[in-house]
Amino acid sequence: MRIARFSIDGHVAFGAVEGEAPDGLVLDIIKGVPFADFELSGTKVPLDKVRLLPPVLPSKVVAFGRNYAAHAAELGNEPPAEPFAFIKPSTSVIGPGDAIAYPSFSAEVHYEAELAVVIGRMCRDVPRDRVKDVVLGFTCANDVTARDVQLREKQWARAKGFDGACPLGPWVETDIDPAAAGDLTIQCTVNGEQRQLGSTSEMIHPVEDLIVNISEAMTLLPGDVILTGTPAGVGPLNVGDEVAVTIQGIGTLTNKVIKRG
Amino acid sequence: MRIARFSIDGHVAFGAVEGEAPDGLVLDIIKGVPFADFELSGTKVPLDKVRLLPPVLPSKVVAFGRNYAAHAAELGNEPPAEPFAFIKPSTSVIGPGDAIAYPSFSAEVHYEAELAVVIGRMCRDVPRDRVKDVVLGFTCANDVTARDVQLREKQWARAKGFDGACPLGPWVETDIDPAAAGDLTIQCTVNGEQRQLGSTSEMIHPVEDLIVNISEAMTLLPGDVILTGTPAGVGPLNVGDEVAVTIQGIGTLTNKVIKRG
Repeated sequence: MRIARFSIDGHVAFGAVEGEAPDGLVLDIIKGVPFADFELSGTKVPLDKVRLLPPVLPSKVVAFGRNYAAHAAELGNEPPAEPFAFIKPSTSVIGPGDAIAYPSFSAEVHYEAELAVVIGRMCRDVPRDRVKDVVLGFTCANDVTARDVQLREKQWARAKGFDGACPLGPWVETDIDPAAAGDLTIQCTVNGEQRQLGSTSEMIHPVEDLIVNISEAMTLLPGDVILTGTPAGVGPLNVGDEVAVTIQGIGTLTNKVIKRG
Repeated sequence: MRIARFSIDGHVAFGAVEGEAPDGLVLDIIKGVPFADFELSGTKVPLDKVRLLPPVLPSKVVAFGRNYAAHAAELGNEPPAEPFAFIKPSTSVIGPGDAIAYPSFSAEVHYEAELAVVIGRMCRDVPRDRVKDVVLGFTCANDVTARDVQLREKQWARAKGFDGACPLGPWVETDIDPAAAGDLTIQCTVNGEQRQLGSTSEMIHPVEDLIVNISEAMTLLPGDVILTGTPAGVGPLNVGDEVAVTIQGIGTLTNKVIKRG
């Protein structure tokens, strides 16, 4: 099932995406929230009549760095023997179609297409064989990065945590098993031109290991998001660009870069 | 005014701390929350009858690293020319008297006494001369750190973001001006023995510069917390230790280290 979060006439709800793209997609409105047993209302609205929102409201986004060897190499880094993570705050999250406002303190902002894991239940110390029980599903993310600031500042709160630095969407696909999330094509285009093309099979530390690693340290809450690293091909975004992250079996997350007002 | 957050008989409220320590302290219960104009109810409860909670519920804690030259030097680091920040998630926050559970993935957990700034209103791009308008007040923090993990992992989400890694309290002192927050004695004791003794006057980048720096990148929300770095003298904590952070004009934040259950 594909679960979107959306607003229509000022109301916010979750809905199950049904039908065929591009014209026939409808949302069957979910009663309540998708983090426990839920029912579909049977009330359907056409997808093109709603505004899609970030598919979840994470308390935190935990992002793993250098999890694709080819990307680590392109920036002159060794891939890490153990995973390492940083945090993108809730204030950095935007949804599909939202604008990425070019930050005032950077002159080199990069796209980074990433597979995002959406946590479905409160958990800590998750054993590897229970990871599937705590994952609601998967969505697309763009780990937008002020590369110049990242190179200057030892920790990346500003470089990767600015407002708009975490586009998520378009929806959460719940029918991908975490073990099967390691073989999906991931692509990034800028203005329709392909810039990144990889496979989640290239991950050094697969999804299940990342969840074990971070949940050993901290409690994960429903709606929290784990970013799993980016393949090779990162590069700059400019004002006016349209950047799109597409992941096989999930969908496409598109955002435009605007001048910060 | 000193504003505490507390629970009594299952109810949670904010209260203004009045009277004289150690026996005469009472809480005058606040109507609503202290992030806008508020009134005291006149209903008073003795401080020793309540459980103090973390004084705020931050959406994020932004922590600045190496902001005291002597501390940077003791770990073999150069003080940074520009401030750099990392994020401790909301799940790392505990309150005064709460236990720090020794994390399973570390064998060397350190205390770090820090002055904490509490944000009072939603803000971004705060000019230096408006910092006082967005600050609710100050509290004590312990930037508890898995030092061995910090040295191994390039980014510090696990080393400084584990559950319990951010004790805050005992309350928010609102009568300190941000410009005057640069001349306060800050002390850390373990089992009553002094381990850190410094002054916020040693900060390389003062409070106002840190707020300008981070708000240039990200929106700060009411209750968000900014940690301002630790003076020299950091060292290990062991199960059974009682660690206390005291800041002049604010109070003392005490936590015990326990074995993780």
